[in-house]
Amino acid sequence: MSSTALLTDQYELTMVEAGLASGAAHRRCVFEVFARSLPRGRRYGVVAGTGRMLEGLEQFRFGGPELDWLASRKIVGEQTLEFLRDYRFSGSMWGYPEGEVYLPHSPVLRVEASFAEACLLETFILSVLNHDTAIASAASRMTVAAGERPCVEMGSRRTQEMSAVAGARAAAVAGFAATSNLEAGRRWELGTLGTAAHAFTLLHDSEEEAFRAQVEAFGPGTTLLVDTYDVEAAVNKAVEIAGPELGAVRLDSGDLVEQAHEVRRQLDSLGNTSTQIIVSSDLDEHAIARLQSAPVDSYGVGTKLVTGSGAPTASMVYKLVERTDDAGTPVRVRKSSSGKESVGGAKQAARRYDAQGRADAELVGLGELPTSPDQRTRELMVPLVLDGQVQPGHTGAEGVRRAAQRHRDSVTELPAAAQRLQEGEAVIPTIFA
Amino acid sequence: MSSTALLTDQYELTMVEAGLASGAAHRRCVFEVFARSLPRGRRYGVVAGTGRMLEGLEQFRFGGPELDWLASRKIVGEQTLEFLRDYRFSGSMWGYPEGEVYLPHSPVLRVEASFAEACLLETFILSVLNHDTAIASAASRMTVAAGERPCVEMGSRRTQEMSAVAGARAAAVAGFAATSNLEAGRRWELGTLGTAAHAFTLLHDSEEEAFRAQVEAFGPGTTLLVDTYDVEAAVNKAVEIAGPELGAVRLDSGDLVEQAHEVRRQLDSLGNTSTQIIVSSDLDEHAIARLQSAPVDSYGVGTKLVTGSGAPTASMVYKLVERTDDAGTPVRVRKSSSGKESVGGAKQAARRYDAQGRADAELVGLGELPTSPDQRTRELMVPLVLDGQVQPGHTGAEGVRRAAQRHRDSVTELPAAAQRLQEGEAVIPTIFA
Repeated sequence: MSSTALLTDQYELTMVEAGLASGAAHRRCVFEVFARSLPRGRRYGVVAGTGRMLEGLEQFRFGGPELDWLASRKIVGEQTLEFLRDYRFSGSMWGYPEGEVYLPHSPVLRVEASFAEACLLETFILSVLNHDTAIASAASRMTVAAGERPCVEMGSRRTQEMSAVAGARAAAVAGFAATSNLEAGRRWELGTLGTAAHAFTLLHDSEEEAFRAQVEAFGPGTTLLVDTYDVEAAVNKAVEIAGPELGAVRLDSGDLVEQAHEVRRQLDSLGNTSTQIIVSSDLDEHAIARLQSAPVDSYGVGTKLVTGSGAPTASMVYKLVERTDDAGTPVRVRKSSSGKESVGGAKQAARRYDAQGRADAELVGLGELPTSPDQRTRELMVPLVLDGQVQPGHTGAEGVRRAAQRHRDSVTELPAAAQRLQEGEAVIPTIFA
Repeated sequence: MSSTALLTDQYELTMVEAGLASGAAHRRCVFEVFARSLPRGRRYGVVAGTGRMLEGLEQFRFGGPELDWLASRKIVGEQTLEFLRDYRFSGSMWGYPEGEVYLPHSPVLRVEASFAEACLLETFILSVLNHDTAIASAASRMTVAAGERPCVEMGSRRTQEMSAVAGARAAAVAGFAATSNLEAGRRWELGTLGTAAHAFTLLHDSEEEAFRAQVEAFGPGTTLLVDTYDVEAAVNKAVEIAGPELGAVRLDSGDLVEQAHEVRRQLDSLGNTSTQIIVSSDLDEHAIARLQSAPVDSYGVGTKLVTGSGAPTASMVYKLVERTDDAGTPVRVRKSSSGKESVGGAKQAARRYDAQGRADAELVGLGELPTSPDQRTRELMVPLVLDGQVQPGHTGAEGVRRAAQRHRDSVTELPAAAQRLQEGEAVIPTIFA
C-alpha cells in the first residue's frame, strides 16, 4: 500500500472543495469518534485499530497517480488539487489507547484540525476502527471464556484477504496467543502457527503415510489432524508413528466435548499424557465456554472471530462537535436528526472505580476532565498525534504488545458481569458529567 | 500490494514442506471450491471476486522480503524456500464466471495443478471469493428489491478499508449503479458519487450558508442533505437557493417512507418536480422493499451491504477431490469427518431450464458434463487459467462490466421465488447427476 488517500468516500473531497471555495474549510474543528451503542447484548467493547490507523495516517498523501485520477474524473477542481498535493495532517488526536475497554458514547477518538484536514480522514479512520474494534471486541469475549487456555486465530479464509491481516492483529490485541496468518505475523511480529489440513492426509495413499511424512518433516512435536477418517484409529496411528513426544492432535469436526474426553482417555492410556488436544470447528465464545470442562488445551477460532461473532462492525461514527466562527471563537455544534442526535462540544473521559478497585462508571465530561469527589478515577484519553507528529508507542509491533497488556489490565478491572456471555446491558453506565 | 504470497495460512507452506520432503507434493491434484449451503434462508448466491482473485494470482510471488522473513522465522526449510522462490502457478482453473448465480454444492472453482502449486493458493482464493461473494449475494437481493431504482454503495466506513474497496466492486457486479469509494472507482472504473455530510452543514453558521457554499461549488444540480435540523425548513431553503434545477435532496434519518412522501409533496408544490429524493439510513433489502411504494429515486446503502446483510462470509471451502497415485492414475478422494463429508472426484456443472426458459435445476456431474435428455442445459464452468495463463475478459474494468451483465442475465433466468426476501430454500435444487 503506497498511499491510503483514496481509501475514502468521495464526499470528503467534495466537502473540502466547497469549503475551500467558501473559506469555511479553514475553521478549526473538533471531530469525535464514538459508538451510540454496543452491538446487541454486549457488555463492553475493546478499542482496536489505533496503531493501524496511525500507520496509515503517515501514508495518507495524494501523489501523482491519485491527483491525476481525481483530475481526470473532475471530482474536484484545481484549488482542491493544490490543497491535496500538499496535504499532510498537521492537527492533533487524542483517544482511548488501543486495547482499552469502551462503552456507549465513550469518546474513543478526538481529532482537532482545520475542517479540511480533519474531514478528509473520516472514512479511513472509521474503516480501520470499526473493523478492528469489532474483531477485538468479539475476540475479547473468546479469550475471557477460554481463561488460561490459549486461543489461536485461524480465520483468514473467511474474510477479505487484507481484513484477515488486520483481524489477526486485532485478535492479538484482545489476547489471542497466535495466528495462522503469515502477513500479520510479519508486519507486527505476531506468533504464527500451522501444520496440516485434511488435504494433506487425502493427498497420501493412507493416513499413516501422511502422518509419517509430517513427522519426518517437523519431528514428533508436530500437531496431527486426526479426524479425516476415523478418529480412534487415527490417534492410535499418530501415537505409533510419533511416539510419546507427539505434540498435539487436532479435532476439527463432530461433537468436540465428547471427542475431547475420548481422545484424552485414549492418549493417556497409550502413555501420551503430555500430548495436547487442539479443537477448531466453528468455535465462538459460547462453544469455548461449553468446552471449558472438556480436556482441551487450546482453541483454534476462525469464522466467528473474523466476522465479529455476529457484530461485524463496531458502528462508530465521526461527528463534528465543535468549530470556530469567523471571530475564531469555538462553537459547540450538534445535529438534531431524528434518532441520530449527538452531544455537541469536545469531550474528555475517565473511568471511575469503587472502593474494591472495580470500574463502576464511564464518566464523560464536556470541555474538562470529569472527576469524582469520593472515588478514584483514571483519565482515558491519551495524545496519539500532536501537531502532526504521531506519538511513540502506538504503532508497529510495540503498539500491539502494549495494547494486549492494556486489554488484560482494562478487562480485569471490570465487574464480574463483564464475563457473562448472555445478552445484557453495558457492564458499567456512561455518565455525562 | 506488491506480493500477495503471504496473505495465507502458515499450514499451506508447511504442507508443501512436508510434501516436498516425501515427494507427494508433486502429485497432480484437483481442488474444488464450493459452499455446503447458502447463508440461512437465502434463495441463491452470486459468485464474485473471480477477477480480483485472478489479479492477485499474478502477484502471488515470493520475493526477497517474503523469503527472508520465512527463513528468519524458520517456518520452512531450504528446499521449500527454493521451491517458493520460483513459484508461479502453472496449472489451470475452471469456474463459474463472476456474476453467475450459484447454489449449494455448485463447483464454483476447480483448480488443477500439483499439490504444492494448488495448496499454496487455498487461503488467498477463499479469502477473496468468500468476502466478495458474500457482498455480491447481499447486493443482489438489494438491487432486485430496488427494481429500476438505482442503488449506490456507501458502506466504506463500516468495513475494513481494503474490504471497502473490494465490497464496492462486488456491489457493482450485483448491479449497484455507483459507489462512494474512490479507490474502487479508480481501480475498476466504477462510477463514483458523493456531495456532503451533516458535518458540512454544522461547519457553517447556518444551514443556508452551507447550502449556498455547496451550490456555488457544484451548481444547482448537486444533492443537498436536508435532515441536519428540520427537514421541511431545509427543503424550503434548498429550493430557494438552488432553484428549480436542484438535483436532489438526501434524507438520512427518521421514518423514510413518511418523509419521502412529505418531501415529494413539498418539492412538487414548490415546482421542483424533477428534483430527486435519495434515501440512505441503515438500508437493507427489506427496507428497500418497504420503500418501493414511496416516491424515492435512489437508495444509498452502507452497513448492511458491506457486512453481507447478516451473512458476512459465503463459507466456501477448498477441498482436495482427486489426486494421482504413484503410477500417475487419478484417485478420487474425500474425507469422512462427521458433518463435513464431501464428494470425491472432479465435477462439472450445468443449469437446466424448463420449457419457459426458467432455470429449474443445478446439475453437477462427476467427471463429465451433465446433460438432460429433454431439457435445455447451459454449461456453467469456463476456463479462467490455462497452463498458468489467465484467460482474457475476467480481470480489470472489463471483468466487472461483463460480470454485471452476467449477473443480470443469470438472475433473470431464475424462478420468481428468487425475488422473495423472506427465508426459504434454495430457489432451484442441486442434483448430482
